[in-house]
Amino acid sequence: VTMSVIKYSSPTSAGAECIDPDCSWVEQWVHRAGPRKDIYYEPNEVKAAIVTCGGLCPGLNDVIRQVVFTLETYGVKNIVGIPFGFRGFFEKGLKEMPLSRNLVENINLAGGSFLGVSRGGPKTSEIVDSIQARRIDMLFVLGGNGTHAGANAIHDECRKRKLKVSVVAVPKTIDNDIPLMDKTFGFDTAVEEAQRAINSAYIEARSAYHGIGLVKLMGRSSGFIAMHASLSSGQVDVCLIPEVSFALDGEYGVLQHLEQLIKNKGFCVVCVAEAAGQELLQNSGATDASGNAILSDIGVHMQQKIKTHFKGIGVHADIKYIDPTYMVRACRANASDAILCTVLGQNAVHGAFAGFSGITSCICNTHYVYLPVTQVITAPKRVNHKGRMWHRCLTSTGQPDFR
Amino acid sequence: VTMSVIKYSSPTSAGAECIDPDCSWVEQWVHRAGPRKDIYYEPNEVKAAIVTCGGLCPGLNDVIRQVVFTLETYGVKNIVGIPFGFRGFFEKGLKEMPLSRNLVENINLAGGSFLGVSRGGPKTSEIVDSIQARRIDMLFVLGGNGTHAGANAIHDECRKRKLKVSVVAVPKTIDNDIPLMDKTFGFDTAVEEAQRAINSAYIEARSAYHGIGLVKLMGRSSGFIAMHASLSSGQVDVCLIPEVSFALDGEYGVLQHLEQLIKNKGFCVVCVAEAAGQELLQNSGATDASGNAILSDIGVHMQQKIKTHFKGIGVHADIKYIDPTYMVRACRANASDAILCTVLGQNAVHGAFAGFSGITSCICNTHYVYLPVTQVITAPKRVNHKGRMWHRCLTSTGQPDFR
Amino acid sequence: VTMSVIKYSSPTSAGAECIDPDCSWVEQWVHRAGPRKDIYYEPNEVKAAIVTCGGLCPGLNDVIRQVVFTLETYGVKNIVGIPFGFRGFFEKGLKEMPLSRNLVENINLAGGSFLGVSRGGPKTSEIVDSIQARRIDMLFVLGGNGTHAGANAIHDECRKRKLKVSVVAVPKTIDNDIPLMDKTFGFDTAVEEAQRAINSAYIEARSAYHGIGLVKLMGRSSGFIAMHASLSSGQVDVCLIPEVSFALDGEYGVLQHLEQLIKNKGFCVVCVAEAAGQELLQNSGATDASGNAILSDIGVHMQQKIKTHFKGIGVHADIKYIDPTYMVRACRANASDAILCTVLGQNAVHGAFAGFSGITSCICNTHYVYLPVTQVITAPKRVNHKGRMWHRCLTSTGQPDFR
Amino acid sequence: VTMSVIKYSSPTSAGAECIDPDCSWVEQWVHRAGPRKDIYYEPNEVKAAIVTCGGLCPGLNDVIRQVVFTLETYGVKNIVGIPFGFRGFFEKGLKEMPLSRNLVENINLAGGSFLGVSRGGPKTSEIVDSIQARRIDMLFVLGGNGTHAGANAIHDECRKRKLKVSVVAVPKTIDNDIPLMDKTFGFDTAVEEAQRAINSAYIEARSAYHGIGLVKLMGRSSGFIAMHASLSSGQVDVCLIPEVSFALDGEYGVLQHLEQLIKNKGFCVVCVAEAAGQELLQNSGATDASGNAILSDIGVHMQQKIKTHFKGIGVHADIKYIDPTYMVRACRANASDAILCTVLGQNAVHGAFAGFSGITSCICNTHYVYLPVTQVITAPKRVNHKGRMWHRCLTSTGQPDFR
Repeated sequence: VTMSVIKYSSPTSAGAECIDPDCSWVEQWVHRAGPRKDIYYEPNEVKAAIVTCGGLCPGLNDVIRQVVFTLETYGVKNIVGIPFGFRGFFEKGLKEMPLSRNLVENINLAGGSFLGVSRGGPKTSEIVDSIQARRIDMLFVLGGNGTHAGANAIHDECRKRKLKVSVVAVPKTIDNDIPLMDKTFGFDTAVEEAQRAINSAYIEARSAYHGIGLVKLMGRSSGFIAMHASLSSGQVDVCLIPEVSFALDGEYGVLQHLEQLIKNKGFCVVCVAEAAGQELLQNSGATDASGNAILSDIGVHMQQKIKTHFKGIGVHADIKYIDPTYMVRACRANASDAILCTVLGQNAVHGAFAGFSGITSCICNTHYVYLPVTQVITAPKRVNHKGRMWHRCLTSTGQPDFR
Repeated sequence: VTMSVIKYSSPTSAGAECIDPDCSWVEQWVHRAGPRKDIYYEPNEVKAAIVTCGGLCPGLNDVIRQVVFTLETYGVKNIVGIPFGFRGFFEKGLKEMPLSRNLVENINLAGGSFLGVSRGGPKTSEIVDSIQARRIDMLFVLGGNGTHAGANAIHDECRKRKLKVSVVAVPKTIDNDIPLMDKTFGFDTAVEEAQRAINSAYIEARSAYHGIGLVKLMGRSSGFIAMHASLSSGQVDVCLIPEVSFALDGEYGVLQHLEQLIKNKGFCVVCVAEAAGQELLQNSGATDASGNAILSDIGVHMQQKIKTHFKGIGVHADIKYIDPTYMVRACRANASDAILCTVLGQNAVHGAFAGFSGITSCICNTHYVYLPVTQVITAPKRVNHKGRMWHRCLTSTGQPDFR
Repeated sequence: VTMSVIKYSSPTSAGAECIDPDCSWVEQWVHRAGPRKDIYYEPNEVKAAIVTCGGLCPGLNDVIRQVVFTLETYGVKNIVGIPFGFRGFFEKGLKEMPLSRNLVENINLAGGSFLGVSRGGPKTSEIVDSIQARRIDMLFVLGGNGTHAGANAIHDECRKRKLKVSVVAVPKTIDNDIPLMDKTFGFDTAVEEAQRAINSAYIEARSAYHGIGLVKLMGRSSGFIAMHASLSSGQVDVCLIPEVSFALDGEYGVLQHLEQLIKNKGFCVVCVAEAAGQELLQNSGATDASGNAILSDIGVHMQQKIKTHFKGIGVHADIKYIDPTYMVRACRANASDAILCTVLGQNAVHGAFAGFSGITSCICNTHYVYLPVTQVITAPKRVNHKGRMWHRCLTSTGQPDFR
Repeated sequence: VTMSVIKYSSPTSAGAECIDPDCSWVEQWVHRAGPRKDIYYEPNEVKAAIVTCGGLCPGLNDVIRQVVFTLETYGVKNIVGIPFGFRGFFEKGLKEMPLSRNLVENINLAGGSFLGVSRGGPKTSEIVDSIQARRIDMLFVLGGNGTHAGANAIHDECRKRKLKVSVVAVPKTIDNDIPLMDKTFGFDTAVEEAQRAINSAYIEARSAYHGIGLVKLMGRSSGFIAMHASLSSGQVDVCLIPEVSFALDGEYGVLQHLEQLIKNKGFCVVCVAEAAGQELLQNSGATDASGNAILSDIGVHMQQKIKTHFKGIGVHADIKYIDPTYMVRACRANASDAILCTVLGQNAVHGAFAGFSGITSCICNTHYVYLPVTQVITAPKRVNHKGRMWHRCLTSTGQPDFR
């Protein structure tokens, strides 16, 4: 591949922008990802930075590794990691980490983020000040919804200041809740690992007299992990997700159904997404540093309610509650996610070299593409409760409508 | 869902057939899979049989389990397993196994086939004699290319004899080499498990002085497992697949490249698909009971060639050969395959009840569908050596063209 | 081995008793375990029962399986499982489960208890009434301290009633806290699995800005699991066990030390045994059905204290709390425990056939032996805080004296 | 601990020697391992080297890591790794690797040897020349029987040259075949991992019509791994070890027994140690670079014999052969081995500082001790075929005497 460095042209439209001659985001806002014939930067002059934000997600290290590999393939010498998310741009004592193939060669064998993560961070203008001061040309941002919004704000501010900086995001949400995308990395691994917890709950429930196993799985606004993990395990009797409201009490409530299961089957397993049934709880209205609402703990709430219910009706019940969140988040990526991360990471670099900015590297309808960040941060993707997958989940659990 | 049993109508076309009023296979030969409003059999009169053929593949038990569950949901009481593949239809001493939800509840937790598998079997006419004698109405056949051809022959013979029998296949090939399908069950698990072998080869190679790790992976006519496993592991220096011919000797041969790797990097890892480089070997022309050509062992061949080569040039080399085939095949399905198996199994039963026969239950361009068996047995699917995935694999390994 | 059935002789001493001519418990209260030349029961007249009590522990199914196998080897035909612990002796609707080699062949491949467990149960006299009514000759009791006391009471009551019943216990405590024994089954597996949680905590802590990973491990009255898991992981900075008291606050308290670790190292991992620091908590004095004190949750307590402390000093800290209890308990036995279970199970049966009663089958100073139950229920075994193993743990963590 | 550096005194006896005033190897040749009040070296003047020899074994990295940690605790600044075994002492282009806590912090999370291994090496005098030239004061040698002999020769040569060098070995044999020791590191992990192979063989055998699973496990001169793995898996029908000779053919041969198993049970699993039945094979008399005899492959031999036998008697048999050797050797240590490695590594350093040389750090009758290398290299430890463990294994497999 012969590459020629082409000139910088000023942004031509709102949202993601590019200098690829074939590109017009106004009419066509999705682009096939991959290397371009012409590249927009002189590789040996480029300083590239990578930053990982938010909570842990399997595959972060795979993406970091692949971004470094691909940058080196282009000939980039100056690659740095910003430690601990956007916080690394301003916190004193946190230093840029020089990155190279040699250093990141095996980081994918462990979970976590080699660069460190954190939530929240400084103001956009401060980050861009720092980008300017550090003379960064390409910024690769790995993060979820909030981080994408942040990446877009940085992109906008760079445009405003006429800075020649490519801001390229790679979506990182274990919940798989970003619209338009087939799946986000880490999700497959999460579903895989979640089954370990479900199987433990099943064994505890089955081995106990009137055992009830309760597992809370990740899903800040969607039930994808809970639904997929329930379906793949085949051991779940009740799956509760935020997209489908349910009553705990009452004739058609969850508790009544558990009572029936204990009576007929002797034990049962419940899988609940963390955001499910929030309307049943008193919420504080508080938010974390990423701006996400702090959810009340539906798992603990249900555990209490189930205990009280069975005590009230004088039936013995032995409830075991498992919250595997951190053990899932800290996993390394499985093979399927590793491939996804590899491709997304390579494409992120191709996108930056093509002169794109304000884009995110993702897979959409089986194709790897670039989407403008603005298009994916409007609202979280949610389980379609009339769709086939949820219906299959209901068939598998055999649960009724809890209303 | 209210279901009415509709009348049997004679087959209307070649290949797969159905009595679904909306169905005309001549014009439209792919049908969306799923339950139909009208069903073609009276559930409590149905005798359904399941048979698993060929080699082991992760997920067999998941499909068996789900077929039984779904049959019971329809109300079928008489479900049997035919032991050890088509052999179970005639071998004396092998008895039908009555199946029920209770019996198969947890079979998915172990690998292998609960019913047993075998290759080859009796003539089609003998199998259909047995089907008649046993009064089987639905036959669910899990197997690969050869087995699908067998299923189709059974379907044809049943039509010829005017038997009201639905023959529904579920494709089982760990190699993922059936055309039209996005993927077949077991493949994802195989790629996952293959990485354990690759990682062992990497550790052995890296820990040895001039270490060379050689891993042979499954792929009777395609390199999908080798390609995906190499890409996801990120530890492979040379990936060899049957779709891309290569020379071992010569200036641009594999051996010369290994020499360079040992010189520059000190160690290397080679991943070879079992059918790769068959043109380099002397083949016996023999076939196994399934009619598959018995391949010469490219892994052992390469191990010898590498040893000889390095001895010849007077350079120390420490080669370790790993063949994880049976340890991969005997795995239980991972979460992703478990979901695939669940849906394919459910759909197989829906298809039979809809009156289809001669079909296979699969996923095609992200949709679950029924395809006529005749359409998928023409030739194996192969890696597109000009495609992006193979190109990504080459980028990952950094290997040159070996010709 | 030729076996002759010898006559029943009345018990000769307090505690465990036997009719083995070589045995005199008065002088020598430990006996080498294993088969005896003479057996005390006519195998084909024996009814043997197995019961599992208390919480789950890896290896229960291995012991059950081996007891059944060995009983069949002796020629016993009538083997039953009492479901859900001692509760199975009286709860209506709970039926004896007939057991055979065929049925239990593969139960060791899954965790949990095939028979079910429960805590507490009926009065001793009621249990013995049930034993009489069921005509049980041998009772194999798997359980911990409380269960051993129960087994001994049953043994005494049988003696009092002149019943020819062998009561043989197999110690089951994941905590490894029974005196005189080298180790109890399940402990090794628990330490192994605990490392998964510690590694997750390490990854979460290391990947976060000022991350603190906190893991609570099992240990109702001892710190063996916490100590061994900390030592083997090599990733723990502070290990807290009940045998060594500590202050949280103050100049030499744990919190002050964490502050230093965060300052110097940036992150840290704390491993706390569930019974550690109970003196720091307000206890309710309540007990569970097994008679064990219900402990206040030191993990949650520490999580709160750490949060408050760092907030108080204005230093950011990101704490992640992991409680892997049920995921550890539900594991299947690892290889080392599987061998231990196999031998203990075989020996339990040999002991019963030798005519012993009131004994427990264990490993003591590398020898497999029978001990009188009375000798092992006096008090739990505890970590010697002046011993070498604890000292090695301190060397590994580098923690100071927290007082 | 206050430490005083004491003077060097000349060696006082043959074999291992020490300057510990309490030590007299003539009368008492085993010493309790651990730190001594007086140390023999000035830590900040010490140059310590570590070398790993032979094949891979789980736990090598744990020992390396702990030796480095403990040396740093003593205050040693100059620590180096000799790459690729003794070969690293002379091979041009191989450089000493400076080691530090920071560098080795997480090496235990991966299998293999961080330093690299190799077999064979230069003459003793050349190694000692190199030791002198490099000014090494302490040499930690991790290896098996042959390596221990090498370590002892180095120790002798150093004494002859009046060099103040401590040569301390840590026994590394996955086979657990060194006399006097309870167990060697890596063995427990090997037994654990071997079960994955046995379980695969079991699943393949059980799922096939007349399936025979054959697993070859490590054991160059002993059957410990095969015996323990067979016992712990509970899935093996025939276990063959080098300590117990057997016939394949004939009325009481293995093949006849397999015939019976296929007839009665339908499938079977055979586990064979690599050195078993060598008398049945034609051996070349060749040795590898470590001086070990190159064994003929009993696994492949049996596979052929079984095929031929069943073909000869006209009975279908489907044999699957699994050799998991490299996948076992490349594993990281499990928790139990990790603790063993930690203590052995710490003790090796304590021993060197105490002024011992020609010793090996091991566990003997539950105590951690130092033994003179000369005592442990006389002959390999072997399974006692009249012992209880082998008897238990026979009980578990149910196999007869094959003679």
